[in-house]
Formats: sequence, C-alpha cells, structure tokens
Amino acid sequence: MDMNSGIKRRAMLKGAVAGTALAAPGAGIAADGMAKVKAAIAANHDAAVARLQEWIRLPSIAAEDRGYPEGPEHMQRLALDAGFQHAEIIPSKGKPGVFATLDAGAKKTLGIYFMYDVKQFDPSEWEHPPLAAKLVDKPGFGKVIVGRGAVNQKGPQATFLAALHAMKAAGRTLPVNLVLIAEGEEEIASPNFHEIVTVPKVAAALKKTVGVIIPTGWQSPATGGVTLALGAKGAVEFELTVSGEKWGRGPRGDIHSSEKARVDSPPWRLVAALSTLVSKDGNTVTIDGIQEQVAPLTARQKQLIAMTAANTSEADAKKALGVERWIDDMSWEESMIRLAQVPTVNIQGLVSGYMGPGGKTVLPGRATAKIEMRLVPDLTKEDTLAKLRAHLDKRGFSDVEINVTGGYGPTQTDEGSALIRAELATCERMGVKATLHPRLAGSWPGVIFTGPPLNLPAGQFGFGHGSGAHAPNEYFVIESSNPKVLGMDDAAYGFVDFLYQVAATG
Amino acid sequence: MDMNSGIKRRAMLKGAVAGTALAAPGAGIAADGMAKVKAAIAANHDAAVARLQEWIRLPSIAAEDRGYPEGPEHMQRLALDAGFQHAEIIPSKGKPGVFATLDAGAKKTLGIYFMYDVKQFDPSEWEHPPLAAKLVDKPGFGKVIVGRGAVNQKGPQATFLAALHAMKAAGRTLPVNLVLIAEGEEEIASPNFHEIVTVPKVAAALKKTVGVIIPTGWQSPATGGVTLALGAKGAVEFELTVSGEKWGRGPRGDIHSSEKARVDSPPWRLVAALSTLVSKDGNTVTIDGIQEQVAPLTARQKQLIAMTAANTSEADAKKALGVERWIDDMSWEESMIRLAQVPTVNIQGLVSGYMGPGGKTVLPGRATAKIEMRLVPDLTKEDTLAKLRAHLDKRGFSDVEINVTGGYGPTQTDEGSALIRAELATCERMGVKATLHPRLAGSWPGVIFTGPPLNLPAGQFGFGHGSGAHAPNEYFVIESSNPKVLGMDDAAYGFVDFLYQVAATG
Repeated sequence: MDMNSGIKRRAMLKGAVAGTALAAPGAGIAADGMAKVKAAIAANHDAAVARLQEWIRLPSIAAEDRGYPEGPEHMQRLALDAGFQHAEIIPSKGKPGVFATLDAGAKKTLGIYFMYDVKQFDPSEWEHPPLAAKLVDKPGFGKVIVGRGAVNQKGPQATFLAALHAMKAAGRTLPVNLVLIAEGEEEIASPNFHEIVTVPKVAAALKKTVGVIIPTGWQSPATGGVTLALGAKGAVEFELTVSGEKWGRGPRGDIHSSEKARVDSPPWRLVAALSTLVSKDGNTVTIDGIQEQVAPLTARQKQLIAMTAANTSEADAKKALGVERWIDDMSWEESMIRLAQVPTVNIQGLVSGYMGPGGKTVLPGRATAKIEMRLVPDLTKEDTLAKLRAHLDKRGFSDVEINVTGGYGPTQTDEGSALIRAELATCERMGVKATLHPRLAGSWPGVIFTGPPLNLPAGQFGFGHGSGAHAPNEYFVIESSNPKVLGMDDAAYGFVDFLYQVAATG
Repeated sequence: MDMNSGIKRRAMLKGAVAGTALAAPGAGIAADGMAKVKAAIAANHDAAVARLQEWIRLPSIAAEDRGYPEGPEHMQRLALDAGFQHAEIIPSKGKPGVFATLDAGAKKTLGIYFMYDVKQFDPSEWEHPPLAAKLVDKPGFGKVIVGRGAVNQKGPQATFLAALHAMKAAGRTLPVNLVLIAEGEEEIASPNFHEIVTVPKVAAALKKTVGVIIPTGWQSPATGGVTLALGAKGAVEFELTVSGEKWGRGPRGDIHSSEKARVDSPPWRLVAALSTLVSKDGNTVTIDGIQEQVAPLTARQKQLIAMTAANTSEADAKKALGVERWIDDMSWEESMIRLAQVPTVNIQGLVSGYMGPGGKTVLPGRATAKIEMRLVPDLTKEDTLAKLRAHLDKRGFSDVEINVTGGYGPTQTDEGSALIRAELATCERMGVKATLHPRLAGSWPGVIFTGPPLNLPAGQFGFGHGSGAHAPNEYFVIESSNPKVLGMDDAAYGFVDFLYQVAATG
C-alpha cells in the first residue's frame, strides 16, 4: 500500500472508540468453539510462520518484472490451501490477478483484497537479507520476522490465511463466504486492477459481498490502538516530459550548452509548464477546474480529525518527518485537516541532462518531472488527467507529454456501513481501541471497490504490528513482548472474530 | 577547453582572410634554416608521437582526483625536456599549475598556456581504449591518434613541444623567449587558475609577454581554414539548491509524498526560483541588472559574423546539432549574432528525489539545478554572481544556495594587437585561410590573461586537425591524407614560423 507509515503510526493513537474487554465471547461463536479455534491457531503457529517465510522468499516486483508467473501461481496455491474451493489466475494487460471463492453456505459474503507483490529493495541497506525472512528478537517488540513484504502486506495477509487454516483444523465452517481478489501491481499503483475486477465473474462475485477488506497489522506500539480509515485520497502518478523531439524546438539530444543562446531548452520549458500547475509556494493546485471539484470535509469528518489531533503528538510527528514547520505555519489540527482536505501536485523527482557530480556543459534534449497528484472526492483519475491535458494545451504546452504510470481516484466508505460496524464490534471484543479516521492522505486502490460499478464499503482491517513498508528492515511481529500489541496468533484470532461479526452485523 | 565542436567546425570555414602560399620563406628565418628545422621535425617525428602517446596514457582528471601529482610532475618534465631552463610546480587551493620560462635572449617574449588535464571518459563508449593512444587509419583523415586529450589539448600542445625540440635539434636559438603557464583544472572551469597566474613571479613573467596562446589543432577538414577568435564568452558554473535543511521549511530528507498536503516542497521552491531567472520561453536572462551590463556588438564585430554566416551552411549546422529551428525562428545570421551577443542561463541538469524508472512516492528534501551562465562583456564572474544572489534575495529566495564550481568572465582581444597580426601573418605564410571571429560562444579562461591585472592579448592558435573533445573516440591527425589539413609535423613547423612572426611583428 502506498501508506505513509508516519500517518499510520500517529493515526493509530487512542481516539473515538474505546475497546472494553480482551477477546470477549459473544456474537456468533460459543466459548468452547473459541477455545478450539485458539488451540488450532496455536497448533498451526509454526506452519503459519513457515508459510509467511516461504512467501517472503518469493518476491514479485512489477517494477522489475521479477517473480512472475511464480507470484500469482503461489498466490493461487495459498488460496486453495486455505480452503478456497476455487482459485484462478486472471490475466490482464499487466501482471495477472488471482480470483478465489470460498462458499461456506453462509448468508453473507465478505470480500478480501490481497496484494501479492512487494516494493523494490536494496539489500545493502538491510541489517538482515530482505528475502531471508529471518526471525529475530526486536527489543520492545518481541520476535519479529524481517523481510520485504513483512508488513506490506504478506504478514497481515498470512495472518488472515492462518485464521482460515485454524478454522479448518478446528473443523468449523466459516460463518461467511469469502471472495478473494489479489493483484500483483499494487506497488506500481494498480494500473490494471480495474480491468481484473471488472471481469464479469469477478465483478459478480464481489457484488455479492458486504464489503472488502485488506488485512493489515498496524496496531500502535504505544497504545495498541488501530485506525479504521473511512477513506483515502486517490493518487495518480505520471511523468511530465518535454523533449526536443516532440516539441520540434530545442535539440533532439544533449548538445553543447553554449548553443543555449540560439536554441530552445526543454528543461526551461518544463520549468515554465510546471510553474502553471501550482501556486508560487507550491501548495495550492492551480490546474484549471480542479479546485471546483473538491468536496469540502463534512462537520463529522472535521470532528473525527479534531479528535485524532487532540490525542496525538505534533512534536512526535514533526520529529518523525524531519519537518520543523507545516505549510503557512498552520496548527497541528489544521495540518491534519489539510492532509485530508486538499488535492496536491507533488514533484517526486526531477530528471534532466547531467546529474553527476559537478557540472557538464550540455543543453539537454529532454527533461522530465515525476509527478504524483493526490485526489480527494469528487475528483477522479480520468477527469483529473483530462483537466491537466486541457490546462497545458490552453497555455500552449500541448507538446508536454503526460505519461501516466498508474493511479486511482479517492475512496470513501460510510461510517454506518455494516463492514465498518463489524470492524468496530471486533475491536471492542478484542479490547483494541479503534479510531475512526475520515480520510488517509496515503492511497490504496479502494475506489475500485467503493466506486462504480461495485459501490461497496472497503477498508484496511486487522491487528498485530509491523513497520518499515517501502523501507529497509521491514518487519512484522510474530510473538509480541508488548502487552498492547497482538502477536500473529492473537491477530489471526481477531480475523476469526471479525468473520463472526460480519455474519452478525445487519 | 569548453569549446563547442560544432562551432569550431563551422567557424573554421573560409572567411575574412585568405592565405596565399604554403610555407613561404620570409620574416625571420632563412630558407636554409627553414629546411634544417623541417628536417629536424621529420627526424624527431617518432619521438614526438611517442611523447604524445606517453602523455595521453597519463590522464589527469580533476573531477575524479585522478593523475595528481603525476600530471603536473610530467608537465614539468615535458617543459624541461623541450628546452625551458626553469620549470616549477605552483601549488593552489586545488590542483597545481606548472610555470616554466625559456630565456632565448630575445627581445620579445611569448606566453603559452597549457592545460595538462583532460575530460572524464567512459571506456565502454570508445572504439579504441581511451588511454591506449592507438595510431589508426581514419579514412579521409590519415593516420590519427585516438585517445582522451588527443585534440583537447595534448595533441596540439605536444605539437608545440615538437616545434621546440626541433629547433633545439637544429641548433637554433628561439627568436622569442617563452613563458609557459599550465593548469590542471581547465575541465572543471579553472576554479584556481587565477590564483596561480597572480603568484607574483608568474604574473611578472607573463606581464612581459606580447600575449598568450594556447596551441590548438582545429583546421577545418572541408577547407583547411582556421578561425582566429578575438574573444569568447565567459562561463560560470554553479548549482542552485533548495534543501529543507537550509530553508527551515519542508523535510530534511525525502518523506512520504502524501505529506505534500501540509509540508512545503524543495523541488517546487526550486521551480519557483528558477522561473524568475529567465523569460517564460527560457531565452532571455531576467536576473536584475544583467542586461544593463551587456555591451552591444560593434559594427565590425557584426560584420565579421555576417562574413562567417555567408560562408557557412545553416543546414549543416542544424543537422550537426539535431536542431530544427533557432529561437524565435530567427535566420542563420541572426542566430550567429545571438550566439555572440547574449548572455544565457542554461540548465545543464535537474536533480531531485527519485530519478529511476517509474515513480516513487516521495516528497524530496532537496532539489538542485545545475546551471551555467555564459557571460559577454562587460559582465564579470564576480559581479554576475553578486547580482544573482541579490536577485534571489530580493524575491525571498535567500535560502536558495548558489554553489559555484568554477568559471570565468568573457575574454576579448584587439584585432589590431601584435599577437593577432602575427597569427594572421603565419596563416598567410602557411597558406591556411584564417577567419576572424569576434567572439566564440564556447568558453576558455582567456580572461585570466586579457583581464586585469595582465590585460594581454590571448587566443587559441595552431594548425592540424582533431575532433571529439569531451566525446568518445577523440582523435588528432598525425599524418594527414587530406591535402587541406596539416599533419603533426607541418603543424609543428607552423608553430616555428609563428615564433618568428611574433618576433617580427611590431
């Protein structure tokens, strides 16, 4: 997921909904059944850890075309082993998805979204090899597994699978049917996931669900709390490129820089085009028609943000980010509102000409800005890109290329939906404090479920803890030494309980 | 030298001054003396080529801190071997210079400028290893030496040394005294050469000269002509950097891009700062006070440019550059005038955040534009940098760092100076057509000689041919199969003749 671990951590602090008792018996599963499932989880612990280790050792990285078709094939086997009666690979223009169904003869069906791909990594930056999936003692956390994908997202997903294996081992029928849809391009912004989800049989199966979750393990190590996000911004990633070739002015390749006196410059043209996209301070999107599409936050959304702001530490956040001031020196609460409220145009990277040490006397033939825009309702990916194209064309920049590498619009789920209520009920039964957050600034392709034609509730959900997504030394807690954080077994039990809450929530 | 080979080639076409007879006897050296020197050059041919090969095999590259102190020590030996009675290494804050004097008891003294360093190279791009100094047959050119520094500048400099060796072997006293000053940082824009030249004994020795030349070998293969440049633009290279650290806003390192909503962006600030430096089309410098310092070209300068324009091919130039249109669709002559006339701000490179394939969701903590400005009279390096600083400060960009990596102001030499007249006379005697060019768009540190306190005439001069400066497969012609171009021996004789012309020109 393209989530900001800084946000994750802060947003998980104690908030709006307080849990009461740990693993209280209740709706849908009797105390003796609960004990049997817990025993099965414990008995299956080593197998569940070994399953996670095996998965981490098989990385699929779309940006590097690595681990295909092994990744989807493995995903298919994981589903079948966990009790899905049907699992098939769904081809796409890019990397394939995996579609699986588990018919438990239940009234309700839950959708599960997995990503089987992981982010790129540089082994030289890691303390332990990123594919070794080594179990190590992490002071203050307990026994953790270290490896690429540990928390993002194989650890939490393997925890969900462990719940299914335990139910099977305990001889229990699931209280809900399951529809699993997995993709292998999440880390490159899901460019083909929409295509996979709209395959008729996949769409039809998902349409029957009460909503979709992706398993997560984001308990706060400080409080044990989790955030239940009701939405997330969308993200569109693209490159803006000026080249002499397309422009018909300037050089086709790099030429001697003294020619600048009489030859037009692609990087200067890129600077001119970029400067029309945002206000002079870089903070307000000025692309024609974008601001008009922004739906303001509701009073309830602002209330939820204010509660989170009141219970979290601005100083900690600034320290974690290495930031001294927010934009316009705004307050902590204002900064959190802005994080949820505004669309952005961010420069991820600039690439042109000579980029080594010192200088080199070239007039570059090409310049690229790597951009990503974050979108809020009611902006959509397609409409935003169309507005950007029109904005550039209107200003004479019709030669500036927009090469979209991926993205999706914002996602939003109703606080009153059965899915969210089942999540809240599970948190309460597990004694885990839950904070509702109206909209994460990070992005995930939830809109593929929450947007048309499916229009389902969707969100992240789960217990346990890990960190280091997209960073070196990514980890996920297997055996927790922190009493506030659940280990993998307890987190698996949390998923079992959640299935019963989904079944019970009308 | 930071010369544009495209310019070199074009500017060398036939022009204002037509040569008459090849190697005519005349001022200063009798026909029998001439024959003896020519015989000595021929006898020393193999030694001269071996000397050049040995030199190419010992690269000094300041940007890579490679070949020091071997480079200056070798330069010192080369000078002593060629007959300089005194040669010493002059330390500087950077790489050392080499200062040498040859007292021939003559009335006049000529200054010689050498660069013993060469440009970086990537062996994988070369047909022959760049340090092998291999002799190969190049169709249409003859026997050439291939290697880094072959034409820029070891080949022409070794040709000049061959002239001195031949004079010595022929038992002749030089008609002029020589002062040699060599530097080892020309390819990084001579950041410390001013310090070397202003060492009192060096400055005093240079002050006695009639002017300074750097040996070149830039005869046009099409016409055999050479360009005598009366000046060159200055060049100042620097990086403009915005960092969260210096700014006190934005992140200190790269952070998750979703934070853009509430965190200021160094690359956006760089874009805003850059866009104040030039007109929207990137073609006119808008830094406060710069245009006011530009001295317009004189009628004579424009006349010289018009003559060059009339005798050169616009189509060839556009093809060589890979350019379809000049700025504002101007004419060939207008483009050549602009090349000589206007100061420029060129973006050599842009560096920020993620620069690999695809995207990466970061908000970079740092952004850098690699800039070089080309300066015309009456702009100076120091004043231009002060104006840039003031311009940025006035607009609130006082945190934008200007990291100067090197540079120097423009250089200009009087067409009527004894040095230029001696060059013209030599060309005429050698039967080589000379074109006077008022100002090259490329740059060399001539201002260190032509500016205060020395105020000497200075320019490039020499015969022979090579190409590929700063590029792979750089070469210099040793034995010419092109009747219009002199081989190394004849070019060495050209230098001998030049020394006599300097002695004879009042």
